[in-house]
Amino acid sequence: MSLFEQIKSKINKNKLEISVIGLGYVGLPVAHSFSKKFKVIGFDINIDRIRHLKKNNDLNQSISKAELKKSGIKFSSNFRDMKNSEIFIITTPTPITPSKNPDLKFIYKALQFIIKIGIKNKFIILESTVYPGASENKFIKFLEKSSGLSVNKDFFYGYSPERINPGDKIHTFNNISKIVSGSDKKTCEIIYRLYKKVVHKVYKASTILSAEASKLIENSQRDLNVAFVNEISIICNKLNIQSSETLKLASTKWNFLNFSPGLVGGHCIGVDPYYLFYSSKKLGYKPQTLLAGRNLNENYPKFLVKKFLSFFNKRKINVLLMGATYKENCNDLRNSKSIDIFRILRQKKHQVHFFDPNVTQKKFGKIIFTKKPRKNYYDAIIISVSHMVFKKMGLNKILKYGKKNCKVFDIKNLFSNQKGIINL
Amino acid sequence: MSLFEQIKSKINKNKLEISVIGLGYVGLPVAHSFSKKFKVIGFDINIDRIRHLKKNNDLNQSISKAELKKSGIKFSSNFRDMKNSEIFIITTPTPITPSKNPDLKFIYKALQFIIKIGIKNKFIILESTVYPGASENKFIKFLEKSSGLSVNKDFFYGYSPERINPGDKIHTFNNISKIVSGSDKKTCEIIYRLYKKVVHKVYKASTILSAEASKLIENSQRDLNVAFVNEISIICNKLNIQSSETLKLASTKWNFLNFSPGLVGGHCIGVDPYYLFYSSKKLGYKPQTLLAGRNLNENYPKFLVKKFLSFFNKRKINVLLMGATYKENCNDLRNSKSIDIFRILRQKKHQVHFFDPNVTQKKFGKIIFTKKPRKNYYDAIIISVSHMVFKKMGLNKILKYGKKNCKVFDIKNLFSNQKGIINL
Repeated sequence: MSLFEQIKSKINKNKLEISVIGLGYVGLPVAHSFSKKFKVIGFDINIDRIRHLKKNNDLNQSISKAELKKSGIKFSSNFRDMKNSEIFIITTPTPITPSKNPDLKFIYKALQFIIKIGIKNKFIILESTVYPGASENKFIKFLEKSSGLSVNKDFFYGYSPERINPGDKIHTFNNISKIVSGSDKKTCEIIYRLYKKVVHKVYKASTILSAEASKLIENSQRDLNVAFVNEISIICNKLNIQSSETLKLASTKWNFLNFSPGLVGGHCIGVDPYYLFYSSKKLGYKPQTLLAGRNLNENYPKFLVKKFLSFFNKRKINVLLMGATYKENCNDLRNSKSIDIFRILRQKKHQVHFFDPNVTQKKFGKIIFTKKPRKNYYDAIIISVSHMVFKKMGLNKILKYGKKNCKVFDIKNLFSNQKGIINL
Repeated sequence: MSLFEQIKSKINKNKLEISVIGLGYVGLPVAHSFSKKFKVIGFDINIDRIRHLKKNNDLNQSISKAELKKSGIKFSSNFRDMKNSEIFIITTPTPITPSKNPDLKFIYKALQFIIKIGIKNKFIILESTVYPGASENKFIKFLEKSSGLSVNKDFFYGYSPERINPGDKIHTFNNISKIVSGSDKKTCEIIYRLYKKVVHKVYKASTILSAEASKLIENSQRDLNVAFVNEISIICNKLNIQSSETLKLASTKWNFLNFSPGLVGGHCIGVDPYYLFYSSKKLGYKPQTLLAGRNLNENYPKFLVKKFLSFFNKRKINVLLMGATYKENCNDLRNSKSIDIFRILRQKKHQVHFFDPNVTQKKFGKIIFTKKPRKNYYDAIIISVSHMVFKKMGLNKILKYGKKNCKVFDIKNLFSNQKGIINL
C-alpha cells in the first residue's frame, strides 16, 4: 500500500496521530476538534500555558475544563513528544515587525522542531496567516534545504488558513467553512479528507497561493470597511451631526453594509493588510486601497478621546474605562485599542479606572485593572468594548458608578437611544 | 385653517398639484409614482425629451408606454405651467466639474424657475444628490435672497435623497425606503406624509445635513468596496493566480462581502465620493479612505485592456465589445467605462465592433454602434456589462461570433466556469 493509501486508510479509521504546534486562540480549538477523532499532541513552547492546560485550564476561555478533560490531548513542551505524529499542524502567531513587515520567526521555530524530529513521509500543514508565496518561496524551501529531502516525494505540505474568531461561540472551528490547499493535488486530497473529518464544509483551493491570499483579503476588507465608517464618524463630527443617526439613515438603503465605527485592534485585522501589502509591493504594485484605512484605524482612539474630552472643558476628570480587550467577549489584551485610550487619558493626567470583567489577570505591563468600580465616583464612563457582560449589567447599574450628571460615552452604541448616553 | 392644516388635508384627499423638475432617470419615476395619487406636472428644459414623453415614449425605458399613458402627467418645458403647484420636487443632475468639484448649476436653474413663478407658501423638495450643507448654506439662502422671503415662514424646504437604481425592476421608487428631512419639524412632517402616500417605508432625518450625508455615504461605500476587489484582482494578476477563484475562496467566510471586480462608471457612485470629499475638506478634514478607491476605479479599464491584450502578443485583432452602458440592464451611456475600453482599444489600433442590444441610439459622440455582430469574425470577444440579454443569449450563441479559438474575456464573470472563457 502506498503512503497515500495508508494515510487515507488511517484517516478513515481514525488511527492517525496529529501534532498541533502553538496552542493559542487558534491552536487549542484546532487540537480540541481533531482530538474528537484522532490522537492529538498539543505542543507549545510556553511552559506556563502547558502547565495550565495539563490541569485542563484554558485561560483564553476557548475550551471548557470539561471539554479539555474529555479531549485526551497530550500536552507537552517537549518537541520529541511529537515524533510519532504523521501530521503536523502549525498555528503559531504571525505578527508584524516594528516597521510593519511580516514577522515569520515563530513559524520557522516550529519548522525547526519538526525538522529535528524528521520530516520523511510527514504532512506539514500551516494554519497561520502568511503573505501569498510565503509557503512556496520560504517554508517549503527551508524544509527542503534543512532536511535534504524533497517536497511531494519525501514530505508533503499543506496550507489551510485559520478562521478562528476569539470569543465567538457561533462561528467555531467545526461549523465554519475551511479552505485547504496542498503542495500537489494528492496532498490536497489528503488534507481535504483530514479536515472533512472534523469540519463541516471544506473547500479545495487550486493553489497554496490562492489559499494564502484569500485569508488576507477577508480581514483587509473588514479593516477597510471599519476605517470607512470611522472616517464617516469623523466627518459627521466636523459637520456637527450624529454619525450614529447618519449611518442608520444610510442603512435604510437595501445594499448598505452595516458596519459600526469602533476600535480595530488585535492580531488579525490590524495586521493582515500589511502582509498583503508586503507581498504586492514585492511584485511591483503599490496598493492604493489596501492600507488606506490602516492609519485611520490606528489613530481613531486619539479622535475619540479628543471628542470625549471636549465635553469637559479642560477639567481633570475621573474616568471609568469599561472594556480592555481588543474586541468583545474575549480576554485577549494584545494590541487592544482600549489600552490606547487608557494611555492617552493617563498622559493627559486624568484619573482612569480600567475595568473589564472578562480579564482575569490583575496587570498588563504597567497597567493595573480595577476589580470593582466605585459607586457615585466618576465624572465620565467610557464603554469601549461591547462585551455581553456589559449589556447584561444594563445601563442603570453602569450609571450608578457615575456621579450625578456623569457622562456616558458609548463608543459601540451598546445602549443606543437610551437616556444619559452620548452617542457619536 | 393654517397653511399646514390645508396642505395636510390636501395630501389626505389627494388634492395636491406637484411639479417635478428634471425628468431623467430619477425624475420620471418620481413623477410617475406621485401621479398615482396627485396631479403632476412633469417639467424638463430638454424639448426633445418632453416631445417624446408627450407621446408616452420614455427612451430611458424606466416607465412603459401604457403606464405613461395612464399616468396623466402633464409634460411641459414651459415653466409657467408649474404655477399652480403647491409642491416642487427637483431631480436635476448634480455632476462634477472637470476639476472634480460639485457642479450645482442645474439645481440653481431649477430654483430660478420656481422663484420666477413665486415661492410664497410653496414647498420645495430636493431629491438630487448634494454635499452636506448645500441645502442650508446655498439653496435656502439663494431662495431667500432672490425672493426676499423667509424659509419656514413664507416658504418651506425639504430634502429627500433619490435612490433610483436605473435598470433595477426590484428596487423601484415605491417599494424602497426613502429618507425625508425638512427645514423645520412641521415641514418634515408634511414631506413625510406626502411621500408616505406613494412610498412604502419613509424615515425622518432629524436634520437636512444628515439626510444629505447619508446619501453620499451609501455610494462612497460601494465605490470603495468595488475598488478594493478591483485592487485584489490586480494583485492576483501579479501573483499569477485567478482573482475569481481567490475571491470565491474568501467568500466562503461567513462575513465576507461578496463584491465582484468590474467597471464603476455612471453619475452616482463615481461622483458622490467627490461631493463628500469636497464638504469634508472645506471643514478642515482631508479624508483618507473616501477617495482611496476612486483613481483605481478610474484606471481599471486600462488594467483590463492590458491584461486582455497580453493574450495576443502585440498582434492587431478584431474585437467584439459587448456592453456599452455604465451598468447592466439600462441604456445609460454617460460616464460608461466600457466606452473607456472601446477608446483604449481603438487608440491601440485594434478593430472594435461595439455591440449593446439595450442601446437604441446608433451613435454616441463619434462612436458608432454595431447593430448585429458578424459571425465567425472576431479574434476576441469582451463582455464588459452583465446585461440579462447577454445571459439569455447564452455563451454558445456568443461564441459563434468568434473565429475558431476566439478568446472570450468575461469581465463580470457572467459565464464563469464555462468552457472557452477567460476569467480573471
